[in-house]
Amino acid sequence: MIRKITLEENEIPDKWYNIIADMPNKPLPPLNPGTLEPIGPEALAPLFPMELIKQEVSPEKWIDIPDEVRNIYSMWRPTPLFRAYNFEKALDTPAKIYYKYEGVSPTGSHKPNTAVAQAYYNKQEGVKKITTETGAGQWGSALSFACQHFGIDCEVFMVKLSYEHKPYRKVMMNTWGAKVHPSPSNATEVGKKILSQDPNTTGSLGIAISEAIEVAASDEHTKYALGSVLNHVKLHQTIVGQEALKQMEKAGDLPDIVIAPFGGGSNFSGLAFPFLRLNLEEGKSIRCIASEPSSCPKLTRGIFRYDFGDTVGMTPLLPMYTLGHDFVPAPIHAGGLRYHGAGVIVSQLLKDKIIEAKSHDNLEVFSAGVKFAKAEGIVPAPEATHGIATAIHEAEICKKEGKSKTILINLCGHGNYDMKAYEDYFEGKIVKHELSDEEIKSSLDKLQTPTIP
Amino acid sequence: MIRKITLEENEIPDKWYNIIADMPNKPLPPLNPGTLEPIGPEALAPLFPMELIKQEVSPEKWIDIPDEVRNIYSMWRPTPLFRAYNFEKALDTPAKIYYKYEGVSPTGSHKPNTAVAQAYYNKQEGVKKITTETGAGQWGSALSFACQHFGIDCEVFMVKLSYEHKPYRKVMMNTWGAKVHPSPSNATEVGKKILSQDPNTTGSLGIAISEAIEVAASDEHTKYALGSVLNHVKLHQTIVGQEALKQMEKAGDLPDIVIAPFGGGSNFSGLAFPFLRLNLEEGKSIRCIASEPSSCPKLTRGIFRYDFGDTVGMTPLLPMYTLGHDFVPAPIHAGGLRYHGAGVIVSQLLKDKIIEAKSHDNLEVFSAGVKFAKAEGIVPAPEATHGIATAIHEAEICKKEGKSKTILINLCGHGNYDMKAYEDYFEGKIVKHELSDEEIKSSLDKLQTPTIP
Repeated sequence: MIRKITLEENEIPDKWYNIIADMPNKPLPPLNPGTLEPIGPEALAPLFPMELIKQEVSPEKWIDIPDEVRNIYSMWRPTPLFRAYNFEKALDTPAKIYYKYEGVSPTGSHKPNTAVAQAYYNKQEGVKKITTETGAGQWGSALSFACQHFGIDCEVFMVKLSYEHKPYRKVMMNTWGAKVHPSPSNATEVGKKILSQDPNTTGSLGIAISEAIEVAASDEHTKYALGSVLNHVKLHQTIVGQEALKQMEKAGDLPDIVIAPFGGGSNFSGLAFPFLRLNLEEGKSIRCIASEPSSCPKLTRGIFRYDFGDTVGMTPLLPMYTLGHDFVPAPIHAGGLRYHGAGVIVSQLLKDKIIEAKSHDNLEVFSAGVKFAKAEGIVPAPEATHGIATAIHEAEICKKEGKSKTILINLCGHGNYDMKAYEDYFEGKIVKHELSDEEIKSSLDKLQTPTIP
Repeated sequence: MIRKITLEENEIPDKWYNIIADMPNKPLPPLNPGTLEPIGPEALAPLFPMELIKQEVSPEKWIDIPDEVRNIYSMWRPTPLFRAYNFEKALDTPAKIYYKYEGVSPTGSHKPNTAVAQAYYNKQEGVKKITTETGAGQWGSALSFACQHFGIDCEVFMVKLSYEHKPYRKVMMNTWGAKVHPSPSNATEVGKKILSQDPNTTGSLGIAISEAIEVAASDEHTKYALGSVLNHVKLHQTIVGQEALKQMEKAGDLPDIVIAPFGGGSNFSGLAFPFLRLNLEEGKSIRCIASEPSSCPKLTRGIFRYDFGDTVGMTPLLPMYTLGHDFVPAPIHAGGLRYHGAGVIVSQLLKDKIIEAKSHDNLEVFSAGVKFAKAEGIVPAPEATHGIATAIHEAEICKKEGKSKTILINLCGHGNYDMKAYEDYFEGKIVKHELSDEEIKSSLDKLQTPTIP
């Protein structure tokens, strides 16, 4: 009975997997918001280094991971894959449950997988500073860590709600030398304008993105980095699923169901795409389920339409499942997964019914998180608890039907910086919150962006 | 160039190493504080299960690790050993630096190694509840985690200073179902008395021990557990050094210098004893250095004498390096390593010059911690930074002398719950604090316990 399936350092994959090569319907092109004409990669040049832009639009199936990136990966990769024997027992299910644990990275989540790659390509092209946004703080920490390794300055706009609830995330970023603002901030024109309209706003990821882009666009040596949503981010995260595939093989098993939390898509894509490859290439039928909060349900209740990636409308228009670009989730304490839209690849896959989605409310996910912590020891990040909630749901179906399916979860991070949310849960301050149809309709009705037939 | 040296799950050692068997001078016996006569193991029976008492006094060199304990160990063990290439480069030293990383455990430190074993033996003997103290919160978390796995209630007295500075440690313990009091508390007679004398006391580990013992002694189904100092605790921690020894062999190397932080001794003993075995058995000359804070310097400035293990004087008298049992470190933010004495085995080894000790002030250790975090990614627990400071000191000697020595550090935990201390450091609130000779003399002069020639 082996609980932890490890790989050697030399088994770190040397290529990222680009699912676009295998998609039956390729994602629709981004549009210029002014002309509504498709835009080419050159439009992204003010914000991203050329190599990342190439990856963003690459049709190649496999993209080499630079040695320098793999070398930094080896500070925590390969990450372990666990068979959750205790959790299976606690659920009294015939299902076999595995989890890939990304919390062993220095920042405690999967985010450094792309942060390191992005910092590397920026460094190659002489960039001096990178700006970004962060929600729960995982991404900002990861980029701070990565920039520090390449001697690049890092400036982070952190959603105000998280900034206040997670002060220690800020200190962590400071430890690696980053500058951190609560967003909206007075450091940008966008931030000042929003603050003047609503001084008590709790912020949103969309607003923080607008601020980070404003700073990056105003200086030629400064670029911008996004921790999710974009194609190249998902690409970098496929290291997770590729390792997990090797580990499942080592365990003599293959998942029937792959589950991951869903914010913008990097977490889900990272684990699921290498397994979806088996479906697309070999005709396997592994179910891949994205788990999202019911308070920000773009996949399960949003619309597939062109929309902006940020709140203010500074990005190109992207074809995505969205709740509307100025949607701000209620100030509940779920942390993370607060983005209004889904990345274009995942959106197209969902549209084509190649993947599934499921939502869970706040109470359900914290209950799942505590159950998991009691059984497996690790206290999961609130983001990660969404995947656990879906796994419990599937394990219960197995129990009811008397079937033993194999379930694989992306346990994308630990909750060491999220104990305030657990405290709120224990004190009964976490409440169930379901968006009404009217709330969603009112947000979507404001959209004036192109629809997709 | 391999950075991370891993072991397979089946390489988890199946025996603990009991250094007493190899010590040239065995530790002096504990004394009854009333009669000053040596006491036998039966005196410990009200507080500990018999199997742990047997381990406390065992002359056997190797003690079997029960399968059930090894099974729970496999939730995070074997832990990785890293070659600190980046840190070596940052220090520009010819020294080779390795670190054994215990922060991958569910609680983030080495403490579960003994917590799981202690909970197991208590469970075997029908114990319903275990009480304990905790300083920085690492030990309380570990025991909460372990008790939860065996269905035992857990009640923790947490030094008030840490309780206030680390609220999330409490939530973590609550997540695993433990009850946590700030110490001194109104839950015990000892606590009430101390609070009535000094309502603003920041507490001490000695006081918290007194409280936990009072609760355990008052109920036959309740026992007490200690996270350091005692022989059986050190015994359980030797799993760390045994793994590290295998990993160093796998790396084709052997340390010249083994370094670990020192509070009560479990962390140091865990890593160092299996290497000291090579000195004692095979005549090797590996230097083993215990690193302590200069604000609680029992090894470097204390006296070797009989003293109580707790503040109030409820324990047997133990032969130890001590600053006096009512010594309370200044309320600085070092966190952990605040205990007034050293365990008897380590004390005897230091007396016999088989090991060394070194102290570092607050500023030095946080500077070391930040340097390490920038190079290696992991933000170390403040306790762990003491070992890093000693490693820097030795690496600088190597540089000066142009010698390449091999240094191994016990990186006993991550600092995810200690970011307040890092914040204080960045804000200049951590100050250098050296105890004056008068302060130490005044604490030692109060002792009326037997001296040791």
